[in-house]
Amino acid sequence: MLILNNHDVQKALDRDECLAICEDAYRELGLSRAVNRPTTQSYLPHSMASSTYSFKSVEGGIAKFNVMALRICSDIVREEETSGTLRLNKLPLAPGGKFVGMVQLFSIETGEPLAIMPDGLIQQARVAITSALGVKYLAREDSATLALIGTGDQARAHLRSLITVRPISVVRVFSPNPVHRKEFVKTMGAECGIDLQEVSSVEEAVKNCDIICTATNASKSIITGTMIESGMHYNAIREFEVEESVFTRCDVVAIHTRFGGVIHYLPPGQEDDFPGVRREKDRDWGQFPEITDLVAGHGPTRINDNQTTFFLNNIGTGMQFAAVGYSVYFGCLKMGLGHEVPTDWFLQDIKP
Amino acid sequence: MLILNNHDVQKALDRDECLAICEDAYRELGLSRAVNRPTTQSYLPHSMASSTYSFKSVEGGIAKFNVMALRICSDIVREEETSGTLRLNKLPLAPGGKFVGMVQLFSIETGEPLAIMPDGLIQQARVAITSALGVKYLAREDSATLALIGTGDQARAHLRSLITVRPISVVRVFSPNPVHRKEFVKTMGAECGIDLQEVSSVEEAVKNCDIICTATNASKSIITGTMIESGMHYNAIREFEVEESVFTRCDVVAIHTRFGGVIHYLPPGQEDDFPGVRREKDRDWGQFPEITDLVAGHGPTRINDNQTTFFLNNIGTGMQFAAVGYSVYFGCLKMGLGHEVPTDWFLQDIKP
Repeated sequence: MLILNNHDVQKALDRDECLAICEDAYRELGLSRAVNRPTTQSYLPHSMASSTYSFKSVEGGIAKFNVMALRICSDIVREEETSGTLRLNKLPLAPGGKFVGMVQLFSIETGEPLAIMPDGLIQQARVAITSALGVKYLAREDSATLALIGTGDQARAHLRSLITVRPISVVRVFSPNPVHRKEFVKTMGAECGIDLQEVSSVEEAVKNCDIICTATNASKSIITGTMIESGMHYNAIREFEVEESVFTRCDVVAIHTRFGGVIHYLPPGQEDDFPGVRREKDRDWGQFPEITDLVAGHGPTRINDNQTTFFLNNIGTGMQFAAVGYSVYFGCLKMGLGHEVPTDWFLQDIKP
Repeated sequence: MLILNNHDVQKALDRDECLAICEDAYRELGLSRAVNRPTTQSYLPHSMASSTYSFKSVEGGIAKFNVMALRICSDIVREEETSGTLRLNKLPLAPGGKFVGMVQLFSIETGEPLAIMPDGLIQQARVAITSALGVKYLAREDSATLALIGTGDQARAHLRSLITVRPISVVRVFSPNPVHRKEFVKTMGAECGIDLQEVSSVEEAVKNCDIICTATNASKSIITGTMIESGMHYNAIREFEVEESVFTRCDVVAIHTRFGGVIHYLPPGQEDDFPGVRREKDRDWGQFPEITDLVAGHGPTRINDNQTTFFLNNIGTGMQFAAVGYSVYFGCLKMGLGHEVPTDWFLQDIKP
């Protein structure tokens, strides 16, 4: 069994190959040959003020790839007030000031554990690659100008993935923090070999672009319906980023999944939410086409260059971790990466 | 971080101490200081005929013990017809002909992983100890004669635990298979130092006993309401073992938990169950007192030696794995058992 770290994951993650695997996984899901178990979060009080222990888990598997994935996060979350707004922060309280999140892979054929790897880069990749598939199926073929709102890890991962599916040659980057913008333009411009331009407002970024991508922690809407001009594609990774009129004004609207959102568990009898428990708006996703429809050719698609399209990468699924984890695992096997420990340590004679 | 095997678990499992920890855990649960996430099972087709891949998981944690537990089973299940009845079998297809089931423990204070251990013995112990708590709170203090129906691993675990809570001096053992009965009486008599008697029918075992315990795989009822005589306590580990009249005839009826049962996930669009998917009868458990009520002194209890009492150890919970896992983990720490691997292998710098 392989135990991998984020350096191994980074080396083994081939974005083109991983996108092809994810696309295939969605095709399999559409054919009833993959499975998802919704995300759950269980909470207990933490000894620190305004803090809560949160254990998150989700599962998904793909028969064709012989892989079942379990993703878990063992987090201490704290509500912190910064410049008047309440923000949710994860605290790195594990030894060495670290975080605890992992993806565990199992073989469907034998049941055995195959690998345990950290979820950090995989989490970023699974969101970004799904957004890239949305772009692949909905954005204009000749999309060259990207408006990127956000400069965090998800924005980086999105830039890396979106340039694999469209001939992006101009990227206008906005974040409210000029230091973050500068840093992003410098490092990501060098990494991607693309002309990154720092801009000072969302409007400036968006005007006349081909693709808008928001990758932020915003709790208020950033993109309004009127910002989306003829021919544009808009990709959002969180519902909070999107003004309601976007849903009604865009010609084609699709989402990642109609599958249910996070289910929260508090101790029985605990009536008030603990600090840091965030419940998403309850929305009926059933009315929207999802990515399996786009991949299978069932869904609505762009029929001309003037239409506006919108993809909301709404909810994560376990199958995404199975697909990206599978890609990383085989990459590491080929490259001889990771710590190998005896599989037998995780097996037993006793029939459970 | 510790990786433990079943030998370590066996050495570290002190049944008296573990029962005290479990009792405390139920007290904590009653005070809203412990949490459970229901069991889920996700299924995918397996390449072998009549076989299905099943990934089961459940979580629970106890703030007082600083522990969150995740239990997972990565199984290949097959439906097999033996002597005219359809039985569900788990196949040991992992390397070396082994099974895959484990309990993973995490620290609530730091989030870090503490241990990974096989679930085999822990699974047996958590059921048996919960039954022993039912006996402790409901059976007559002077209960000396036990009728034990079943000779499998659960029957062994139950015998080991029930003798810690009542002065059992006579045990009458029945199983339809005489070879199993003989073997059980010989090995468990020696282990427990108690007079074990082999009997040839359920009726013979039950007549004039103080406690009935069924620990079987039966899919038809074994114990009927009329078998339960004045003063007896009956413990069942599966609803299938119990004739409906037991619920109405017994003076006091309690269950393990009112918490929900297993939630099953098939691939989307998959209409028929795969082979080996077993769905429990949908019963409203809400009407019954549960073990947290008994431990907290809220529930009904035996008020005289003539009453009949019934405890149905109905559904497993994640918190049981947290309590037994905690007991085993600290036992192993004290005794220096297990493989130690760097905790850092399972941590990361990236905020997930």
